[in-house]
Amino acid sequence: MPYEYIQLDKNGQEPLYHQLYCALRDAIARENGALLPGQRLPSIRQLCEDLHVSRTTVESAYQQLCVEGYLEARPQRGYFVLAAGGAPRAHPAPLPPQAPRPKARYNFGTDAVDAGCADLKTWRRHIRDVLNEPEALVRYGDPQGEPALREALCAYSGAARGVVCSPAQIVIGAGTQPLLSLLCGLLQGKAGAVAFEEPGFLQAEQVFLDCGIGVVHLPCDESGLTPQALRESGVRAAFVSPSNLKSRGGSIPLARRQALLSWAKDTGGLFIEDDYNGELRYRARPIPAMQGMAADGQVVYLGSFSKLLLPSVRIGYMVLPSPLLPLYRARAERYNQTASKIEQLALASYIQKGELARHLRRLRKVYAQKSQTLLHALRQAFGTRIELHLQETLLCVSARLSGDNSPETLVARARACGVRVRPGPDGCVTLGFAGIPIADIAPGVAALQAAWA
Amino acid sequence: MPYEYIQLDKNGQEPLYHQLYCALRDAIARENGALLPGQRLPSIRQLCEDLHVSRTTVESAYQQLCVEGYLEARPQRGYFVLAAGGAPRAHPAPLPPQAPRPKARYNFGTDAVDAGCADLKTWRRHIRDVLNEPEALVRYGDPQGEPALREALCAYSGAARGVVCSPAQIVIGAGTQPLLSLLCGLLQGKAGAVAFEEPGFLQAEQVFLDCGIGVVHLPCDESGLTPQALRESGVRAAFVSPSNLKSRGGSIPLARRQALLSWAKDTGGLFIEDDYNGELRYRARPIPAMQGMAADGQVVYLGSFSKLLLPSVRIGYMVLPSPLLPLYRARAERYNQTASKIEQLALASYIQKGELARHLRRLRKVYAQKSQTLLHALRQAFGTRIELHLQETLLCVSARLSGDNSPETLVARARACGVRVRPGPDGCVTLGFAGIPIADIAPGVAALQAAWA
Repeated sequence: MPYEYIQLDKNGQEPLYHQLYCALRDAIARENGALLPGQRLPSIRQLCEDLHVSRTTVESAYQQLCVEGYLEARPQRGYFVLAAGGAPRAHPAPLPPQAPRPKARYNFGTDAVDAGCADLKTWRRHIRDVLNEPEALVRYGDPQGEPALREALCAYSGAARGVVCSPAQIVIGAGTQPLLSLLCGLLQGKAGAVAFEEPGFLQAEQVFLDCGIGVVHLPCDESGLTPQALRESGVRAAFVSPSNLKSRGGSIPLARRQALLSWAKDTGGLFIEDDYNGELRYRARPIPAMQGMAADGQVVYLGSFSKLLLPSVRIGYMVLPSPLLPLYRARAERYNQTASKIEQLALASYIQKGELARHLRRLRKVYAQKSQTLLHALRQAFGTRIELHLQETLLCVSARLSGDNSPETLVARARACGVRVRPGPDGCVTLGFAGIPIADIAPGVAALQAAWA
Repeated sequence: MPYEYIQLDKNGQEPLYHQLYCALRDAIARENGALLPGQRLPSIRQLCEDLHVSRTTVESAYQQLCVEGYLEARPQRGYFVLAAGGAPRAHPAPLPPQAPRPKARYNFGTDAVDAGCADLKTWRRHIRDVLNEPEALVRYGDPQGEPALREALCAYSGAARGVVCSPAQIVIGAGTQPLLSLLCGLLQGKAGAVAFEEPGFLQAEQVFLDCGIGVVHLPCDESGLTPQALRESGVRAAFVSPSNLKSRGGSIPLARRQALLSWAKDTGGLFIEDDYNGELRYRARPIPAMQGMAADGQVVYLGSFSKLLLPSVRIGYMVLPSPLLPLYRARAERYNQTASKIEQLALASYIQKGELARHLRRLRKVYAQKSQTLLHALRQAFGTRIELHLQETLLCVSARLSGDNSPETLVARARACGVRVRPGPDGCVTLGFAGIPIADIAPGVAALQAAWA
């Protein structure tokens, strides 16, 4: 028997043609294999007879080996081995798994929203409605984002945030980062370095750095970036979060906003306004976005929904100023849309039917209550030993405890008592209240009191 | 009455505090407005009495104006106007809408899949199952992608594509572009320019260009990129689609793959392997991915699902070689996940339960049938006047018609007869068959015959 390298199991589960394909492939690919480059294979008829298999079996195996480049069919002459192959690699030893994040009894982290105040039932209904429209699902969407969602966002951002735009200026994406990547392409070579408020925003900065655009941190006063620092730095673009001033949990005051916009006017500079949770003010009405105060061309606006809706839904939007639109349009077809079309259409109807506005009103009440509960519990527990700043839109409280303990020590001691908190800037510890159920806040603070006693 | 700029409608729908806030804001913000910087406002009690409104109404309005920086509260002294503001901008005139793509009676475009062969019912069920797990929805996911999906993709890509990896090497993203952006960051400064096969792949190239990484087009022979061209160009990275050779609708043969990998071995070069629809061969079994033939460190593998599952689902994955993992892990927290967590979890269970494998088997049969129907109809209609190449994984046929008509002319004449086809490279016209129902193929070709007569 000349085919000792072909072992076929005619009662096996694997189709015969595939067993034959594998045997021949291995005979070709293995070093010192049974079949050598240039060697002629038996004819199809010959092999059928020798192996007692059907013609289709041999044909299929030979065809597959031809397609993959192991064999070559020479008309009137037969099948020849083309090149020595390499045997498939073995699987690598698995890497050590990453350390899982330990579960805490009381989670004051900032990576979740409380299931009790998420609008799951309504969201589910909107998703189901979209899933019942097959026509929408079998087509790629508009690379700029679904027109229905862009129209809804135009109306929503105007009413809720004072953003002034048309749907043609809105670009949808799977969160802030893909939108910033796209923006970097539009700015390429024109913006130079981008200024950030100290202490910066790592995830946005990373995108600029990945795109080869430099990042500079400018000194801030208690109202954030100063026009003077912008002028002295010579930058032509600055990233700002006017609703999320880190220094005191407030927002950039009106006079500063106007002074910043004067810089943009005088120098042709551009602001990238990250309006993260800008609509989530609950002690007072939300402050309108800078975009609406600015002349067209001075501000690129970024909005998102992860904390308003669900962290698992990845949809954000960017409002481009008119001067950037021609360049964007010329390139729009080169960018695939990153946000799920199903979720885009669900969000469009969720906004159009007023569900988002209703949910926001609910959230404002819930977060007002949760923040007060947390502040009250912390004051009761630590009295004058603690200095507290509520950061409304970030849904957290910054706490500075008197004494010598570093934030890292406090975080570690809390963790040992089953409480998750995070180190913040300026020697503070950050306690998020979006994810923890309201009933857990007081017992969580009591556990913290024991941990930090 | 000293407050002629305050008009309150006590029976209106707008809350009183908001009417008051708006009136005061406008009086401050408008040029020559009634309230000037430095001016002191009436005390809260005074205004309550004068306007016959509650204390809460005035307090809320003043608080909001303070938060926004229109007013300043000076302890013991009262409320003062802080700065002249700018009235909100008017909405810009809407841009002319983009020309809508005309609907064709017979659509041989490449932007959709046929609803008849999409697995909508099963997909819907998996999405619904995920929507019933609130715990998953209220948390951000793993920035690298859901562990369940990474495990499923590891097993799937190994079985279906011969990819050799562990789940720790897999990064999920909303399609190829966000994954390439992330990769560009990892390669920054190390790769120099990236080589592409002529005629290139615009959407991938755009990402590199946006990231400030150069792109060079290298000449190809009928087996694609040549090791010689790579060596002469001096590039250190090359983008390849081994399953989608544009030149003849085939794939890079084994010998060429090995020669390319020798280049990687000799020079430390890196391949970025785009395995778009690599599993979608229907005349022979799919050809395993280059990644599985290569040594670790030579290939970054990219897979996606838009044509396998639904174009509206945006999920792709990237398999990083071990040498890039430490850098990725150090940065993983700086990248938000772009793919919807809901769709990730649905896809994980869709793969684990064998639905994707079942659907792929179905698709292979459907596409074999559709492609044969299209080829047959075109041969019948145009006989020797037409040269045809089936591009299996691209789900289209390249057609070159004898005569002097340019592809653009042929496309325009087809459009005039209600048939959508696209201009392709090398003087060809491209006819996609994924989106058109099988029953429409023959009448579509008949319409084309009339158009091109």
